[in-house]
Amino acid sequence: MAALTLHPDRLFPPDEATRAIARRLYDRIASLPIISPHGHTNPAWFAGNEPFENPAELLIIPDHYVFRMLMSTGVPLESLGIPPAGGRSTADPRAVWRLFAARYHLFRGTPSRLWLDWVFYYVFGLRSRLDAATADHYYDVIDTRLKAPEFRPRALFEQFNIEVLTTTESPLDTLEHHASIRRSGWGGRILTAYRPDNVTNPESPGFQEAIRAFGAVTGQDVTTFSGYMQAHRVRRAFFRAMGATSTDHGHPDPFTTWLPAEAVEALYRRVTTGTVTPEDARLFRGHMLTEMAGLSAEDGMVMQLHAGVFRNHNPSLFARFGADKGADIPVAVDFVHALKPLLDQWGNDPRLTLILFTLDETTFSRELAPLAGHYPALRLGPPWWFLDSPDGMARFRAAATETAGFYNTVGFNDDTRAFLSIPARHDVARRADAAYLARLVAEHRIGEDEAEEIAHDLTYGLVKKAYQL
Amino acid sequence: MAALTLHPDRLFPPDEATRAIARRLYDRIASLPIISPHGHTNPAWFAGNEPFENPAELLIIPDHYVFRMLMSTGVPLESLGIPPAGGRSTADPRAVWRLFAARYHLFRGTPSRLWLDWVFYYVFGLRSRLDAATADHYYDVIDTRLKAPEFRPRALFEQFNIEVLTTTESPLDTLEHHASIRRSGWGGRILTAYRPDNVTNPESPGFQEAIRAFGAVTGQDVTTFSGYMQAHRVRRAFFRAMGATSTDHGHPDPFTTWLPAEAVEALYRRVTTGTVTPEDARLFRGHMLTEMAGLSAEDGMVMQLHAGVFRNHNPSLFARFGADKGADIPVAVDFVHALKPLLDQWGNDPRLTLILFTLDETTFSRELAPLAGHYPALRLGPPWWFLDSPDGMARFRAAATETAGFYNTVGFNDDTRAFLSIPARHDVARRADAAYLARLVAEHRIGEDEAEEIAHDLTYGLVKKAYQL
Amino acid sequence: MAALTLHPDRLFPPDEATRAIARRLYDRIASLPIISPHGHTNPAWFAGNEPFENPAELLIIPDHYVFRMLMSTGVPLESLGIPPAGGRSTADPRAVWRLFAARYHLFRGTPSRLWLDWVFYYVFGLRSRLDAATADHYYDVIDTRLKAPEFRPRALFEQFNIEVLTTTESPLDTLEHHASIRRSGWGGRILTAYRPDNVTNPESPGFQEAIRAFGAVTGQDVTTFSGYMQAHRVRRAFFRAMGATSTDHGHPDPFTTWLPAEAVEALYRRVTTGTVTPEDARLFRGHMLTEMAGLSAEDGMVMQLHAGVFRNHNPSLFARFGADKGADIPVAVDFVHALKPLLDQWGNDPRLTLILFTLDETTFSRELAPLAGHYPALRLGPPWWFLDSPDGMARFRAAATETAGFYNTVGFNDDTRAFLSIPARHDVARRADAAYLARLVAEHRIGEDEAEEIAHDLTYGLVKKAYQL
Repeated sequence: MAALTLHPDRLFPPDEATRAIARRLYDRIASLPIISPHGHTNPAWFAGNEPFENPAELLIIPDHYVFRMLMSTGVPLESLGIPPAGGRSTADPRAVWRLFAARYHLFRGTPSRLWLDWVFYYVFGLRSRLDAATADHYYDVIDTRLKAPEFRPRALFEQFNIEVLTTTESPLDTLEHHASIRRSGWGGRILTAYRPDNVTNPESPGFQEAIRAFGAVTGQDVTTFSGYMQAHRVRRAFFRAMGATSTDHGHPDPFTTWLPAEAVEALYRRVTTGTVTPEDARLFRGHMLTEMAGLSAEDGMVMQLHAGVFRNHNPSLFARFGADKGADIPVAVDFVHALKPLLDQWGNDPRLTLILFTLDETTFSRELAPLAGHYPALRLGPPWWFLDSPDGMARFRAAATETAGFYNTVGFNDDTRAFLSIPARHDVARRADAAYLARLVAEHRIGEDEAEEIAHDLTYGLVKKAYQL
Repeated sequence: MAALTLHPDRLFPPDEATRAIARRLYDRIASLPIISPHGHTNPAWFAGNEPFENPAELLIIPDHYVFRMLMSTGVPLESLGIPPAGGRSTADPRAVWRLFAARYHLFRGTPSRLWLDWVFYYVFGLRSRLDAATADHYYDVIDTRLKAPEFRPRALFEQFNIEVLTTTESPLDTLEHHASIRRSGWGGRILTAYRPDNVTNPESPGFQEAIRAFGAVTGQDVTTFSGYMQAHRVRRAFFRAMGATSTDHGHPDPFTTWLPAEAVEALYRRVTTGTVTPEDARLFRGHMLTEMAGLSAEDGMVMQLHAGVFRNHNPSLFARFGADKGADIPVAVDFVHALKPLLDQWGNDPRLTLILFTLDETTFSRELAPLAGHYPALRLGPPWWFLDSPDGMARFRAAATETAGFYNTVGFNDDTRAFLSIPARHDVARRADAAYLARLVAEHRIGEDEAEEIAHDLTYGLVKKAYQL
Repeated sequence: MAALTLHPDRLFPPDEATRAIARRLYDRIASLPIISPHGHTNPAWFAGNEPFENPAELLIIPDHYVFRMLMSTGVPLESLGIPPAGGRSTADPRAVWRLFAARYHLFRGTPSRLWLDWVFYYVFGLRSRLDAATADHYYDVIDTRLKAPEFRPRALFEQFNIEVLTTTESPLDTLEHHASIRRSGWGGRILTAYRPDNVTNPESPGFQEAIRAFGAVTGQDVTTFSGYMQAHRVRRAFFRAMGATSTDHGHPDPFTTWLPAEAVEALYRRVTTGTVTPEDARLFRGHMLTEMAGLSAEDGMVMQLHAGVFRNHNPSLFARFGADKGADIPVAVDFVHALKPLLDQWGNDPRLTLILFTLDETTFSRELAPLAGHYPALRLGPPWWFLDSPDGMARFRAAATETAGFYNTVGFNDDTRAFLSIPARHDVARRADAAYLARLVAEHRIGEDEAEEIAHDLTYGLVKKAYQL
């Protein structure tokens, strides 16, 4: 039985001189509060504060990083407890856990391994490595602890030293859980973000009903485009009143456009009443991104754009299990032409902050850093999704910093629904930044005093400023 | 006269702590048998077991890495002994060797230098560096040794500790050399692989005659598409009976499609009887990749796809010397859309293993690792061709591992027709993997015990499993 | 007040063993003369030898790296003294300097910081770090020194140990400043380069008037394409007579084509007399690149191609300030298909040297190294523009060397209009090359004796050879 250890110098460069610098830099930021300005945790957890169900429900079934890897090497999703679309899992959680534990070696070299080991070690106090032999021990320890009061969502939130945690909701969401958290008197700061994809993307499932619901929830006449825009204004104001400081937009590509008023009105009529063509859907999405930038300039909400993913690439899997099952695959993107219409209008506006995320790392040095190093409105989000890893982060800093500097970036965000992994992910980011900065210091490109300042900014200062937190 | 030395720590990271780990990991895999599951050596060498002709014929004329570099800096191919298309070289092999030796500095920093130095040192026992001054000494030593029995192909095969060596043959090949090797009683395991490009790519030279020959060799009526598919089944069975476990497909791009039966029948008639249009050729190739995946699911042969090369980019060179003369240039590829039709049908099938190779390393993190980290049927081949180098391998592991892990990869293959370089290439790969793993250990991302296991798997376990060897 | 120091080991790898090698390699090349074969300094400086105006005019207003970063974080260009298009700046230079100084931390991690610190330290003898507190001290010191004779352009040229400095001029330029430098008897070697974009790109502003002026300055009848080609021959001869050894071509993409004579004649008539369509402009540019390769094969001038930038991406900025204001953004390029028509004709011609530059680093390993490692006419230019940085250079060498070697590259060029930064930029390049070579030595891939030879070639030998200097 191998010991589970987390070395204090993990993720630091091996060279002893550089490592010593990294360690000093990290030590100054390691215990800063966590600012999590973008993610997908469920506000109901913090509203209800109920215990999490069991180890499989907590750590495997909601984590597409975990089950996609198991599936890719031959484990059927059914046997991992992934429920069929619209149904419920019938798998025994302990059996699921054993399947996972016996294949834990598959995660060697991946960030999931780093995050999970952190959770095992620090949250659950486990001290032997997970494998087939320790599977039941793990299950029993975690399952028992989940029932204790200090493992309830609010207690973990506090223990994790989270200063702000942002969730993501659709305009149709009532924000009842956020309201309930506020009413409860609990001090945890949980914010929402305005994610209007279901009413801006005509290809999202149930789009036309969503538009009608959007009219109902805002009391606007959404049969016209101007009424629809007014509904956005109204709903954004409601989200802001509930604490939101940001919007988020997940698009298949970063295409933007700006259509004349009559053309938009006609397009709006087509996509809200007729059969939606792919080209109309694309035009509407593209026009709405530009509109959303305008609304952000108006009301001051920070705008986030996550673009460039082929969603639901595996149709038979989608038919059986639905969306978000690890079948979303990145594609190459071109920001330079795609964002031009939006930037032509809003790129120089000091009131707008637009944060860009990508999974196509070729754009870091070629497009994103040059764009963010020019336009006042643009900032670079941290490495996203598959790139949210030690080497992914190192490549991002190395590719972007020389052109865009540090101050066109916005710190880290975890973008996760795996609540327990949040501190682990921020810890990886802090270590990765310390490692990168240590190299710059060791190569005498910046002073260590400067690196200390930057490390603090990357961990705390820039994210609070960019997201107005 | 500079000494030729091969440092025992070559290709390991310079940092002493990391290097020590790399050395320990390497020591455990250095002498494992070579599994070479894909390459282009000539089975006639092992059937006939005749001595190799002379140093130039052995090391320069068949090695496009070598002569392309010399050509790029101004040496005409004629003077290097490259024979004209359909003709014979008239160059004096010693003169060729001298030209090469005087320009050996051009290979500094390239893998050819590493492979050649290994061959010079270990195979021929040379101890001074190759240059103009040592050219004749080299020529004489190598030429003399080639005449000795221990430098015949079978003896080298054994000396190299090769457990399996796979060649690549067309369906029209009689496999007579493979049969002859079997009949000879010699114990060397030489397998073939089924490479049907000349009967699946309507743009390959002599395609329509090849189809007719395909009908003749299989006894099938290839005037219909179903007869043609039956011919594949028959020929694949013959290859399997001769030991083949894999197929290989070299396509200009990874485009796949799936056409309705009548459309395929009509398309087949057009490409086999009329003038072939580029679009028809593309459709047929794309459809046939999907068909081949189906046949692999049926008969269990591992499928390899090498896509994304602009072949014969230099038309005047092609006219004078023919194909495979260093004028093949990689192009950007998109696997996400291209493979979807094939994956829609076979991506989740546990009977299929499809191994992907690319020369566009931007796809490692963006497309290939996410695809292989999801679809049960997909595996990532090792860095191919120009990327088959220490830094190319390091970039592959760094870009792919964090998303796909180690266990969606299939170990190394040398893909070479330069027989003598095979151990050198595998040695570079083992060192590169040891170096990468040592970094993960030094950064405390995995334990050294885990790294040992992975190193063994990357060298031996994964390749045997993926290729069923 | 922090001290300004330039560590002697800056930019060398932190690992002590590798660093020691890098230091030894660097020491042998550190004081070699500077060969600057491509750039944008103003020959009038050296003709007139007048003092530079003030710190802001010298170091901020002409440096788009500097003001783009300031603008990207919210500083209006007006306040930085950038003059409106066709107008003059009214900003107080000291106020400009203070704005810059207070935001100098924005440049941490960027090459601008390295270049500027070098200038502050070595040229102006400053010993405290630039920030808000030291702004006035800096301004006063620099402003005072600029008035001294040893800070005049020619004195700096000599002090910088520049052996050759090449500027870039249009065919319409009279080269009067170059003539004046020659007549002056001053020994500094300032050459021009032939940059015909304003008469080869129908989309360049004032193209048709430029064509008429081209006829006038060459005495050729440019109403026909053959007369126009003759004008190029005449003007190239004039440039050569004035010392030019190279041409330079800045194109939106590397597209080339070769049109039949009648088609070119008709196309020429359209673009020189009518309304220019984008497609006609593209065809003419593409044809002219191939023609220019032919002229270079004829007259021996080295040809440089800088392609793949979306110029003037920010239209409102362009309207207010004009071109070259930091709003040029790189785009993805495809050299493999784009250059084929040119290479089909000239790629194997030993008389042509075509040097390629890119901002799309994905092409380094995928396209450029394979092309340059094959075609005798091709060479790889050093990392360009945003990639002209320590990590950019490291990625270039790592991506290109294993396929193209060192000897298909052409040494460093600074490509700058920031005269004072030239030695700093060359110093960064020398250190980056020493660092890369040191790694190869430390990994036992080449001998240190070989690395010394290569370092000399990369700094001095290859650039003199490629540019015939």
